[in-house]
Amino acid sequence: MTGFDPSRAYAENLDAQDELAQFRQEFIIPEPDLIYLDGNSLGRLPRHTGQRLQTVVGEEWGHGLIRGWNAGWYEAPTRVGEKIAQLVGAAPGQVIVSDTTSINLFKLVIAALKARPGRGQIISDTLNFPSDLYILQGAIELLGGQHRLELVPSADGITPDLAGLERMIGPDTALVTLSHVVFKSGFMYDAQAITAWAHKAGAMVLWDLSHAAGAVPVELDAWGADLAVGCTYKYLNGGPGSPAYLYVRRDLQDTLLPPIWGWWAQRAPFDFDLDFKPAAGMNRFLVSSPPVLSMLAMEASVEVLLRAGMPRLRHKSVAQTDYLIALSDHLLAPRGFSLGSPREGALRGSHVSLRHPEGYRINRALIELLNLIPDFRAPDNLRLGIAPLYTRYVDIWEGVQRIRRVVEEKLYERYTAERLAVT
Amino acid sequence: MTGFDPSRAYAENLDAQDELAQFRQEFIIPEPDLIYLDGNSLGRLPRHTGQRLQTVVGEEWGHGLIRGWNAGWYEAPTRVGEKIAQLVGAAPGQVIVSDTTSINLFKLVIAALKARPGRGQIISDTLNFPSDLYILQGAIELLGGQHRLELVPSADGITPDLAGLERMIGPDTALVTLSHVVFKSGFMYDAQAITAWAHKAGAMVLWDLSHAAGAVPVELDAWGADLAVGCTYKYLNGGPGSPAYLYVRRDLQDTLLPPIWGWWAQRAPFDFDLDFKPAAGMNRFLVSSPPVLSMLAMEASVEVLLRAGMPRLRHKSVAQTDYLIALSDHLLAPRGFSLGSPREGALRGSHVSLRHPEGYRINRALIELLNLIPDFRAPDNLRLGIAPLYTRYVDIWEGVQRIRRVVEEKLYERYTAERLAVT
Repeated sequence: MTGFDPSRAYAENLDAQDELAQFRQEFIIPEPDLIYLDGNSLGRLPRHTGQRLQTVVGEEWGHGLIRGWNAGWYEAPTRVGEKIAQLVGAAPGQVIVSDTTSINLFKLVIAALKARPGRGQIISDTLNFPSDLYILQGAIELLGGQHRLELVPSADGITPDLAGLERMIGPDTALVTLSHVVFKSGFMYDAQAITAWAHKAGAMVLWDLSHAAGAVPVELDAWGADLAVGCTYKYLNGGPGSPAYLYVRRDLQDTLLPPIWGWWAQRAPFDFDLDFKPAAGMNRFLVSSPPVLSMLAMEASVEVLLRAGMPRLRHKSVAQTDYLIALSDHLLAPRGFSLGSPREGALRGSHVSLRHPEGYRINRALIELLNLIPDFRAPDNLRLGIAPLYTRYVDIWEGVQRIRRVVEEKLYERYTAERLAVT
Repeated sequence: MTGFDPSRAYAENLDAQDELAQFRQEFIIPEPDLIYLDGNSLGRLPRHTGQRLQTVVGEEWGHGLIRGWNAGWYEAPTRVGEKIAQLVGAAPGQVIVSDTTSINLFKLVIAALKARPGRGQIISDTLNFPSDLYILQGAIELLGGQHRLELVPSADGITPDLAGLERMIGPDTALVTLSHVVFKSGFMYDAQAITAWAHKAGAMVLWDLSHAAGAVPVELDAWGADLAVGCTYKYLNGGPGSPAYLYVRRDLQDTLLPPIWGWWAQRAPFDFDLDFKPAAGMNRFLVSSPPVLSMLAMEASVEVLLRAGMPRLRHKSVAQTDYLIALSDHLLAPRGFSLGSPREGALRGSHVSLRHPEGYRINRALIELLNLIPDFRAPDNLRLGIAPLYTRYVDIWEGVQRIRRVVEEKLYERYTAERLAVT
């Protein structure tokens, strides 16, 4: 970073120049002293979202009752999908909101494997979120063991073996499925290049955008991606467990059929025919009635992100994660931390992992004693999420001071290594 | 009905004697003139639910942020499941909240079929909610066509051919899956008898309780049922699209494995192992993070129902549906309506269908001109749902007057038969 210095004044100056700074006022921030660096697990509550939800509950449900379905709920999976589409580089008609990331992955993986009969190899990597790997393992078991899962290794736990990935893809590859930004190290794939490698071999590609959408530029159409899924409770600030979305490239939609045939996937659901006839387009990737309160809260949150715009968000995210790494080099590296993320901004999402052998106990001490919320990912990653919509440079500065203090004063020593369940 | 007379005073007198009458005050009822007879599609908003949701959003998400997961969200699928268990006659440890009814059905159907290898027949009926049949058709396709779906017919569209069902069950039957209360006619199966028929043949039984739970006595343990699913947005008043639940009898839990292997089904999800190892007990039937706002709103609603208690609810439901049928016999049968539900209370859930060739247009006219909300189910059912927690006898009396008026004054004639999408 040019002109970097480790003073608080330097951070304050960066905040003063930040053109997104006013967006912080759009969020509910009830504890000024709390440093929240876990927006990559659960984004903060936008003011607008709380207001919208009061209307949804009081007016739309309480007053409108069943009429709510004809006054906006029924179209919500499509309408909200189109808003998310703007964040992931998808032209209209290719993104819908439905179910959870894992269930959408299941639906699309089965559909993709059926579309590549005779091919037995599924490629993912050891850095992928384990739920994605479990879904693949379950799909293989369900389809009778005709497929095998091969995982690209990572020598350092930060970056996958990209040359190995390229070699692994071949004429037997049915599907390549990876997280665009990986959940621990924050490594970001060159999705366009990998999509091209897979397509050259005739394989399909499915991207999990959970740690990418709203954090980094995603260009599904430009990449030529086939399929994608993602969650909305991280950088999209949709609220705890808010519904997920999925993308199917337009020309594939009528050639793929997911295996869960619910009535929202039916061509004319209100005819109540006894036989399933799949809808055209994206509706066949729906299953059944979505959790409307959670979905419309999420819609309101996405609108805030759309107003900020991805280019400005990405610019600030790279600047802030660079700043965090510079501060960590200066103050934390001498105290036993090593960088668990790519050093180069272009290879990184919007979170940074710092590795320390006492990572788990440090995380607990930070939360319980020093009012800093990062999160911990086994075995040794203290994961710090930067949400440019509301994270300030002074938050990062103050966060690093607190981490330093926990280690210097050995405050973590009062905790055991017994694990808490935090998603 | 003893002493029945068609006057408003008679209805008022029944309300005055109703020991559940005070529960109506626990609901938001903003339009006193609106007669809402569609609580079997979407239950009304309990006052308590709106308040609880404000706390969940403002305090638990806005203030607690990620800490909410350790302050009650993480256990919610189990905790809320135990509340629902009390409504469906299940001892603790057998019901969890997860996903949607259709997805839970998919998970359990696949698990059940895998547990009956070599058996090819799946039995359901033509009265079942079509989404259930579509899920079965999709599962059969997915498993390679080794199974066939056979549907118990119904001669009158009201009652299934029970003798035919008994004959159909045999040594090749893998699974019998039915709705305990069927969605159009409201016919209620003798679930204990049918479970026994299926078990005698070595088949598994899966009940869909969507139109039953909270409306009629459900006794899964006493029936000896194997599996069940159900939704929470009807008589449980959980809110639009609120999450569904599933039941697996205790002794089956560790022998069945659903096909969608998400991280919430993993034995130790926060170890982030790369290989799936299913949790013991009910957790293996979960998939991933639930929509917390929708789930906790639903939890608050279920608590209201628990305070009323199923025996009192059922008593009032039968009395009210009997009253509705008596009024209809008196005022609507002479005007072209026929009863589309069983006449005997013991064979009926908490909704009554009235059939009329102009049912669709009558439904529209009632909603748009006369402020009565029933719903319509093709081809000719005007479906009237009784929710004993908040439906008064005078609502039923007034509703029947309005239906009479629409037909007498031919108010429906201004509408075409073009369909609205209402769930």
